[in-house]
Amino acid sequence: LSNGMYVQVRKTLHNMPACDVALVLESTPSKVRTELWQLIDPEFHGDVLEELSEDVRNGIIRNMVPEKVADAVEDMDTDNLVELLRTLPDDTVQEVLSSMDFQDRQRAEKALAYGEETAGFVMNTDTITLRPDVTIDVILRYLRLKGDVPEDTDTFYVVNRHDKLVGYVPVTKLLTARTDMTVKELMTKNAEGIPVEMPERDVAKLFERYNWLSAPVVDAENHLLGRITIDDVVDIIREDAEHSMMSMAGLDDEADTYAPIMKSTRRRSIWLGVNLFTALLAAAVSDLFEATLSQLAVLAILNTIVPSMGGVAGNQTLTLVIRGMALGHVSPGNSKPLVIKELAIGALNGIIWAVLIASVVALWKQDVMLGAIIAFAMMINMVAAGLAGATLPILMQRMNIDPALAGSVILTTITDVVGIFAFLGTATLMLMP
Amino acid sequence: LSNGMYVQVRKTLHNMPACDVALVLESTPSKVRTELWQLIDPEFHGDVLEELSEDVRNGIIRNMVPEKVADAVEDMDTDNLVELLRTLPDDTVQEVLSSMDFQDRQRAEKALAYGEETAGFVMNTDTITLRPDVTIDVILRYLRLKGDVPEDTDTFYVVNRHDKLVGYVPVTKLLTARTDMTVKELMTKNAEGIPVEMPERDVAKLFERYNWLSAPVVDAENHLLGRITIDDVVDIIREDAEHSMMSMAGLDDEADTYAPIMKSTRRRSIWLGVNLFTALLAAAVSDLFEATLSQLAVLAILNTIVPSMGGVAGNQTLTLVIRGMALGHVSPGNSKPLVIKELAIGALNGIIWAVLIASVVALWKQDVMLGAIIAFAMMINMVAAGLAGATLPILMQRMNIDPALAGSVILTTITDVVGIFAFLGTATLMLMP
Repeated sequence: LSNGMYVQVRKTLHNMPACDVALVLESTPSKVRTELWQLIDPEFHGDVLEELSEDVRNGIIRNMVPEKVADAVEDMDTDNLVELLRTLPDDTVQEVLSSMDFQDRQRAEKALAYGEETAGFVMNTDTITLRPDVTIDVILRYLRLKGDVPEDTDTFYVVNRHDKLVGYVPVTKLLTARTDMTVKELMTKNAEGIPVEMPERDVAKLFERYNWLSAPVVDAENHLLGRITIDDVVDIIREDAEHSMMSMAGLDDEADTYAPIMKSTRRRSIWLGVNLFTALLAAAVSDLFEATLSQLAVLAILNTIVPSMGGVAGNQTLTLVIRGMALGHVSPGNSKPLVIKELAIGALNGIIWAVLIASVVALWKQDVMLGAIIAFAMMINMVAAGLAGATLPILMQRMNIDPALAGSVILTTITDVVGIFAFLGTATLMLMP
Repeated sequence: LSNGMYVQVRKTLHNMPACDVALVLESTPSKVRTELWQLIDPEFHGDVLEELSEDVRNGIIRNMVPEKVADAVEDMDTDNLVELLRTLPDDTVQEVLSSMDFQDRQRAEKALAYGEETAGFVMNTDTITLRPDVTIDVILRYLRLKGDVPEDTDTFYVVNRHDKLVGYVPVTKLLTARTDMTVKELMTKNAEGIPVEMPERDVAKLFERYNWLSAPVVDAENHLLGRITIDDVVDIIREDAEHSMMSMAGLDDEADTYAPIMKSTRRRSIWLGVNLFTALLAAAVSDLFEATLSQLAVLAILNTIVPSMGGVAGNQTLTLVIRGMALGHVSPGNSKPLVIKELAIGALNGIIWAVLIASVVALWKQDVMLGAIIAFAMMINMVAAGLAGATLPILMQRMNIDPALAGSVILTTITDVVGIFAFLGTATLMLMP
């Protein structure tokens, strides 16, 4: 990005849709990113901010004056605006809010009052509502006069005098219906709205299950508050899936691929610290058998095999159960057959790999007894892995801990300790005088 | 599920929507599943099959006679029908096809000719097309006469006399436009269709980026072939995300949580086999230092710490890069700053954890030299982990191997071998006479 190219880059960025500009920003190291941001037309800032991930966005906003941020966000949909404000530090939010005009501020403050990651948080308030006693003809004339409907409108909601949801009419039905019909005759009745406090993850599940394009959001008295559209649900699904994958590696799910080095190092250190602790724990277990190890170096060489196999088998079960819980296939009510199944797989795995490792070790080290000992340890650790992999996520969910985040470390600690104890313990009993 | 309850269960299943019946089937062990299937009204079989995951669905179809399958699938949308047929064994597909009526069979065979996981494979052919020279008034009258439009229609596509795509009109625009306008005046021109051979993963990215609800699919000459709707894209996104998570644990992504024990064991054994091989490889590296280990049991006790820390650090980098590639932030073109960044993080991590482990070991074992040795090995392995974690997925993608599938094993092998070699090698040089 040498000096002579500024004009050209500015021009290129100017001709790109906002989502593509966002992709360019996400794909550049953080230093270049700040320079690129300066080259983007300020009118365009809001659109680009909407498309950026949390981490990258906050980095950019931290370098902007609050008035500029307020200008950039004033045309945003409520749901995107609130999502943006939520992730900013509290004092920045106050500064931005006080730079906004009255109407926008009120809209933002109302939405901020809903809990994070709830239906109220992701909904939009730009709904067109119909009254039951109006004819289709009147509605069509009104719409033609208005000349425009909110983006992504696939359904009109029908409310009574008290703004309570009583039904809905898909847009396509207005096109195919006889114009002398009333909304009441045309609408699907008994429409159930999404409660405003429903967690967004559950909202996404409903959308996926019923193939909705949009859904109404209501309060406890069934008053229509807004609507949720599929584009926001797609984001929820993607973030949720990413969250599981990233947190299983101990990474923050909003992590910016090109974040500054110091920040990345700090973030990853928690996980490495936890792992150091568990590695030391495993070393402490080995330490109990120092006398055995000092006499039989061959045990030291084979000591990692049983814990490693247990870790892989246990993590397979763990991942399967976490996915099953995310899809709603596994719940405390039907977990018993699952635990039994995973225990059986663990036992079967144990037999298979015990026989194999026994043969390898007996041949390699020319010691049948050693083969029998490692086989026995493998059996025990595989069963322990199946049991821990199946029960841990269920237990953690009951204690409201995210199993994707800590499940894998706890599991590996269990399989390490059990594996080393079983192997070195049996060896001490059988081989030491 | 005792005998007396059959009638009641049948009644309950009968009153549930298809997606909920599917959820019940997915949440039951495979034996009970077959019994439940018998209780479902055959008229309803097709709808339920559509909602089931591949694994569970194939298990059920294997127990059905081909005529029954053909009956069940005859009302399915083309995309769902093809997806179902694709996953069946070839001879079953032939039997089912020959049991179908002529029109259905032709439709299915045409769609089967498109490559798996391409746009042609997920598209639907039930599109309503408009001609440019018709007035809105005529179209509205036609639609009212027809009385119905295909499910999830949010956009009508405009084609010329040769069936080539020339533009599109959102449904809502038909509602708000003056009725004397022609389609040509109202439509958005130069609509670009999705090429029929585009991989479905790229289709999903386009939908996500541009917040589409549906998109037209065209052949190389821009002839309109069908449309893709957001509900199918949501499935692609979910499956893609799941695929990454599951394959990082070495599991088949369509795995059925309640699959029979033998089947699950067989599936997981590949991964365990690979892991046994790499664990033996690590043991073989330790074996090179048998003389050292037999004299200093303390090395055996500490031998797992450095490989374990390298594995965690490397997997963090690996996961981040795989995610970055999936989101399109990382490509061969901009991978250099990323590799440099991850190397720097590796070095920084190396220093931090080297100092820490050196202090712990020096205090625990009262041996400063031992602390220095493990610190040196930690430094080397952390840099190796950063390098391997950043370059492996990029190299694997270039060789068309899925990095989510094999990346983690290869990485762990590298960090194990480097870690053991660095620790035991340095110890041998420094501590042995």
